Amino acid sequence: MRIKIINPNTTWSMTEKIGACARSVARPGTEIVAVSPAMGPASIESHYDEALAVPGLLQEIAAGEREGVDGYVIACFGDPGLQAARELARGPVMGIAQAAMHVASLVGTRFSVVTTLARTIGQARHLAEAYGMQRFCANVRACEIPVLELEAPGSKARERIVDECRRALAEDGSDTIVLGCAGMADLCAHIGQVLGVPVVDGVAAGTQLVESLVNLRLSTSKRGELALPPAKPIAGLLEGFTLQAPALKRAA
Amino acid sequence: MRIKIINPNTTWSMTEKIGACARSVARPGTEIVAVSPAMGPASIESHYDEALAVPGLLQEIAAGEREGVDGYVIACFGDPGLQAARELARGPVMGIAQAAMHVASLVGTRFSVVTTLARTIGQARHLAEAYGMQRFCANVRACEIPVLELEAPGSKARERIVDECRRALAEDGSDTIVLGCAGMADLCAHIGQVLGVPVVDGVAAGTQLVESLVNLRLSTSKRGELALPPAKPIAGLLEGFTLQAPALKRAA
Amino acid sequence: MRIKIINPNTTWSMTEKIGACARSVARPGTEIVAVSPAMGPASIESHYDEALAVPGLLQEIAAGEREGVDGYVIACFGDPGLQAARELARGPVMGIAQAAMHVASLVGTRFSVVTTLARTIGQARHLAEAYGMQRFCANVRACEIPVLELEAPGSKARERIVDECRRALAEDGSDTIVLGCAGMADLCAHIGQVLGVPVVDGVAAGTQLVESLVNLRLSTSKRGELALPPAKPIAGLLEGFTLQAPALKRAA
Amino acid sequence: MRIKIINPNTTWSMTEKIGACARSVARPGTEIVAVSPAMGPASIESHYDEALAVPGLLQEIAAGEREGVDGYVIACFGDPGLQAARELARGPVMGIAQAAMHVASLVGTRFSVVTTLARTIGQARHLAEAYGMQRFCANVRACEIPVLELEAPGSKARERIVDECRRALAEDGSDTIVLGCAGMADLCAHIGQVLGVPVVDGVAAGTQLVESLVNLRLSTSKRGELALPPAKPIAGLLEGFTLQAPALKRAA
Amino acid sequence: MRIKIINPNTTWSMTEKIGACARSVARPGTEIVAVSPAMGPASIESHYDEALAVPGLLQEIAAGEREGVDGYVIACFGDPGLQAARELARGPVMGIAQAAMHVASLVGTRFSVVTTLARTIGQARHLAEAYGMQRFCANVRACEIPVLELEAPGSKARERIVDECRRALAEDGSDTIVLGCAGMADLCAHIGQVLGVPVVDGVAAGTQLVESLVNLRLSTSKRGELALPPAKPIAGLLEGFTLQAPALKRAA
Amino acid sequence: MRIKIINPNTTWSMTEKIGACARSVARPGTEIVAVSPAMGPASIESHYDEALAVPGLLQEIAAGEREGVDGYVIACFGDPGLQAARELARGPVMGIAQAAMHVASLVGTRFSVVTTLARTIGQARHLAEAYGMQRFCANVRACEIPVLELEAPGSKARERIVDECRRALAEDGSDTIVLGCAGMADLCAHIGQVLGVPVVDGVAAGTQLVESLVNLRLSTSKRGELALPPAKPIAGLLEGFTLQAPALKRAA
Repeated sequence: MRIKIINPNTTWSMTEKIGACARSVARPGTEIVAVSPAMGPASIESHYDEALAVPGLLQEIAAGEREGVDGYVIACFGDPGLQAARELARGPVMGIAQAAMHVASLVGTRFSVVTTLARTIGQARHLAEAYGMQRFCANVRACEIPVLELEAPGSKARERIVDECRRALAEDGSDTIVLGCAGMADLCAHIGQVLGVPVVDGVAAGTQLVESLVNLRLSTSKRGELALPPAKPIAGLLEGFTLQAPALKRAA
Repeated sequence: MRIKIINPNTTWSMTEKIGACARSVARPGTEIVAVSPAMGPASIESHYDEALAVPGLLQEIAAGEREGVDGYVIACFGDPGLQAARELARGPVMGIAQAAMHVASLVGTRFSVVTTLARTIGQARHLAEAYGMQRFCANVRACEIPVLELEAPGSKARERIVDECRRALAEDGSDTIVLGCAGMADLCAHIGQVLGVPVVDGVAAGTQLVESLVNLRLSTSKRGELALPPAKPIAGLLEGFTLQAPALKRAA
Repeated sequence: MRIKIINPNTTWSMTEKIGACARSVARPGTEIVAVSPAMGPASIESHYDEALAVPGLLQEIAAGEREGVDGYVIACFGDPGLQAARELARGPVMGIAQAAMHVASLVGTRFSVVTTLARTIGQARHLAEAYGMQRFCANVRACEIPVLELEAPGSKARERIVDECRRALAEDGSDTIVLGCAGMADLCAHIGQVLGVPVVDGVAAGTQLVESLVNLRLSTSKRGELALPPAKPIAGLLEGFTLQAPALKRAA
Repeated sequence: MRIKIINPNTTWSMTEKIGACARSVARPGTEIVAVSPAMGPASIESHYDEALAVPGLLQEIAAGEREGVDGYVIACFGDPGLQAARELARGPVMGIAQAAMHVASLVGTRFSVVTTLARTIGQARHLAEAYGMQRFCANVRACEIPVLELEAPGSKARERIVDECRRALAEDGSDTIVLGCAGMADLCAHIGQVLGVPVVDGVAAGTQLVESLVNLRLSTSKRGELALPPAKPIAGLLEGFTLQAPALKRAA
Repeated sequence: MRIKIINPNTTWSMTEKIGACARSVARPGTEIVAVSPAMGPASIESHYDEALAVPGLLQEIAAGEREGVDGYVIACFGDPGLQAARELARGPVMGIAQAAMHVASLVGTRFSVVTTLARTIGQARHLAEAYGMQRFCANVRACEIPVLELEAPGSKARERIVDECRRALAEDGSDTIVLGCAGMADLCAHIGQVLGVPVVDGVAAGTQLVESLVNLRLSTSKRGELALPPAKPIAGLLEGFTLQAPALKRAA
Repeated sequence: MRIKIINPNTTWSMTEKIGACARSVARPGTEIVAVSPAMGPASIESHYDEALAVPGLLQEIAAGEREGVDGYVIACFGDPGLQAARELARGPVMGIAQAAMHVASLVGTRFSVVTTLARTIGQARHLAEAYGMQRFCANVRACEIPVLELEAPGSKARERIVDECRRALAEDGSDTIVLGCAGMADLCAHIGQVLGVPVVDGVAAGTQLVESLVNLRLSTSKRGELALPPAKPIAGLLEGFTLQAPALKRAA
């Protein structure tokens, strides 16, 4: 089985960390391909960043379809472009917020999300609602750490995240932690050991869930909303994204 | 006051119709600028189309900020890019689904949305929930008319839309109709006369609401989620969307 | 266009302030008529006060219908009698809580209501739910200022309201303020300047929204719940409120 | 124990039927006083009717407080004036929609409300939500029978109500019926026998619940929203409703 | 009328206290039979305890059916086995959490539950949702008192409960208290006097509500989900619980 | 890895079918142990059946803990005893309704559940809500096939289920099917091929999810509600279920 993990930002050091994390949980026969798009922002910390990351992400999905990829993980906690990606792909597509929240709801009764910047709290809440996970989400908390600081050597990020997780358990009545950024994937095991409660990283969770769906031969339903998009002209800079009706037919 | 109506698809015949509709309700002193982006799909009928329409839309918002625009209407019923646009803009930004649903909830007790293709029903429902309008939304119904057929001379679209509206009133227990596509803006008065209930078109409603917000000197709150996005490098094809920190400062 | 602003309490100093506020945002051609009913309580701070304010309010609506009024604003944050008024009126009717909450949801992501007495918090929450605005309403806070103290010269009300607004922003995670009493209409601009976030007064918001609805030729739907009430005898003190079937027909 | 059943309309034949129904379920030591107010509409079929019934209803509550009444039932399915009445009364106050819906949720899993005119469906739905009973309310159905036709000798009302109840069971997936008008109180036993499922009449249910609350020495909480209303001048026709601060003190 | 109060744990000192409490509110003609099952845990403080209490509880329901019992109260705040008991019984069955929450919603606007161990908070929240009472439930608070400590002479339980109730009123914005354990039934009057707000004990409330339902001749609906369970073999230790088809018929 | 699949009814032909289904999706290194409890009902079609199946199920969990089982699947669509089982187990525990609904929400936008008897619809709806999956659950439909008829050779069950699935897709607006009984596990592939949409069987889905959780080293959170149950005496027939404090300590 071949699973493509798409880090929708263009910071390849993060992409490599994400790929390593996915490989560490993947089944023996699974090939993990971790990529960043050729275009897009260096990190995703706003709706603007999300919007500009999506075309590059969709390019990687379209390429994956040509390359025979079996399933996809979108490795950014805002799950940018998830529904558009599900339209394009024949196999399953998971976002890491989606994966982490679902998994957290299976091992605990209430989780707290610990994320990077406070300005992204709204998006995490929005996703919790869209996935039906709001009832399990006790709180979303920010550490005010910019995404790329997680990559900086010597950063105090890990300590600050652990501190915020502790506050979450003490104040939110939660019994499980969800890490709110793909850039925290490598911290998951450490934080879980320190806290003694389940700590869920969406990259690992998403990889597992996509493997499971592929193994169950379950794919995005093509009846209705998530069917292949209708072919039509696309003008200007993004002209290359034009889908051809026959190509679509072949894909289907 | 200067209001920019952005039709996020690149079909200018629709843009002109939308502009005329906005002008027909605007106050005497208001200048309406109706545009399509330089890039993007010819119509928006999928999540994929939405995703690819957003960069061009944001370009128009950024241009609007340089041109001293006071407020914006996004004239596609999926309200693509709304939150990203609100981050960029100093003045208010409305989506037409948002505007139409709010207005419908002020004149009736339950509305039915009548839209184009069934595959977009999910997005309309999603927006109704996000805006708190789900409780007023009795149903979302599709006529299975592709968006551009609304532009075709001799099309039976108007008859089919009226028929679906009649079924909505008879079967949904609704007392108000929301037209679910910017391309229906010119049909609103006719359908309202035929049905004898309020029929809401989002282009007109959005124009009025943006005028009202500007007049009230109320602008998107820049505290938190909708503050100006952080400046950072954007790579590849979309490099031109890179925001400069000083530019941002000037804008603020 | 002629809009009637009804302050449902009988304190005319407040009515004049409300009228001035409405006029300051109304369009050039709009005539604002601001009135208090001939009967009812001096201020509205309980469900009992609300109940006794409604007959006088309805009298003003009925008079407005005879006088050719185009739309109405009910200028009390409990929105008393709103549905009954919508049954009587041909044009649109807005409550100021309704108007302020809708507008706040268009410019921010979460608002806090700052109101007078704590005993009215329940009603504000109830309205937020009824309007679908609960998801945007982070909190409702009281200053424990009786309504008429807002009218008293030398009152410290403004300072206490500003203080409560500051606490709201700091503690509630909100980015927008809604003023929870018509008697605060004149404080709106000042508080907005001090706080640097959108501050919404329902009198101004309601005036704008009614103007917009009239301009859009949208009126309360008369299909179903909000149709003209059936004519029937009314006994005793309120006998004068008896609607005549023919009068109803003429009105329709 | 003394319980006052207030039929908020002024049709005494209905009041007598309601009183008889309450007496038939009351405990031996309970005195039932069934009244109509001295003022108000002959039947309640609109928000306008409700609004004009409330002052007379509150007069009866105030009189009840002077007469040592222990608890109240408001015998109209729209539960008009319930919160204002709870402010005035020391003992418990129940509306019949409230009572019937609560009781129905205790004996079945889903109920259908069968009411008079379709225009009142919205109010029944609104109350179901306000009482937390929406999740048990499978549907609200109207027979299009005006309230006073229930009083007319030779009316076919009973047959039409039974027919609608049958449709409710067959189509709504409900296992319990709630009768949506005080004027149906005398039909309850008959319909229950015919249908073989629990049929709940709010007058009987409300009488029982008020007796239970009084017996449990539980009264409306006077901490906060439902405390006695603040005394203040009331002008004009309703001047007689002015509460005196000392009177309030005595009452408390 | 004969009402059986089943304390689903096997601690008879608590059963006697519960029986006394039920008798103190029952009507003159009502016989209260208070029992513990012959099998099950000494107290109920976990889902495991609940699961193992249910068979003994159902045995008592089945016995009650043979003995002509008119209605049942399940006297444990987790309402264990409620739906299964309702399937078996012809008369009404109430859980004490259900009874207490419903009653609290009739006398106040928001209640706080004060319970024993924090690990049971989730179950109380779950029940509040299942009964539609979540909107009235401001908070669930634990005193960290094990259930059987409530029975211990010289325990400080009462003081700690009163303290937690005070905090609830001060911090939760609630106006009513619900006691979250049958073992607190005897403290209800005292706490109510001390706090000056309604304090609801589910044993008393449940007894009253079952009496009311029996008096109204309302029984669990046997149409659908709560019909008598289908007869079938039960193997092993619980073989004695096998229902015989004829026995079922007789019961019906 | 060792996963125990517990069919909570005592019909071993179904247990074997379930085991075969789990093995067909399990990873190479995973040992599947499929069992029925030594005690309990032959099939589960009521709350009564569920209640009596749980003790036997918990016995199997306790045995599994002694045998070093890594995770559990409860193979009955009512998910009986799930929370109690999660308290006892160190590893993860999934119910098949939980697993199937989560998985369905990952591959489609709305699912219909097709189950056996109509009397179980309420439980399926209840679980959908408890898991946050209500928003994805378009409908729950029954075929009125008793559970054990699924085991009968020559039964027309498969045809009737396929027919109901077709109606679900046509009438519910759903794009995915969830099979509502463990006894349908062997029909999943066939129905999926016939319908051309994702068809989810909870046994396969649950097996995959438990494997994933074990692989992620994520276990039920032992902080709070799902901690090991407190040790205490259990009397009578179920005495053998008494947990010993030291045993608990060892287990932890």
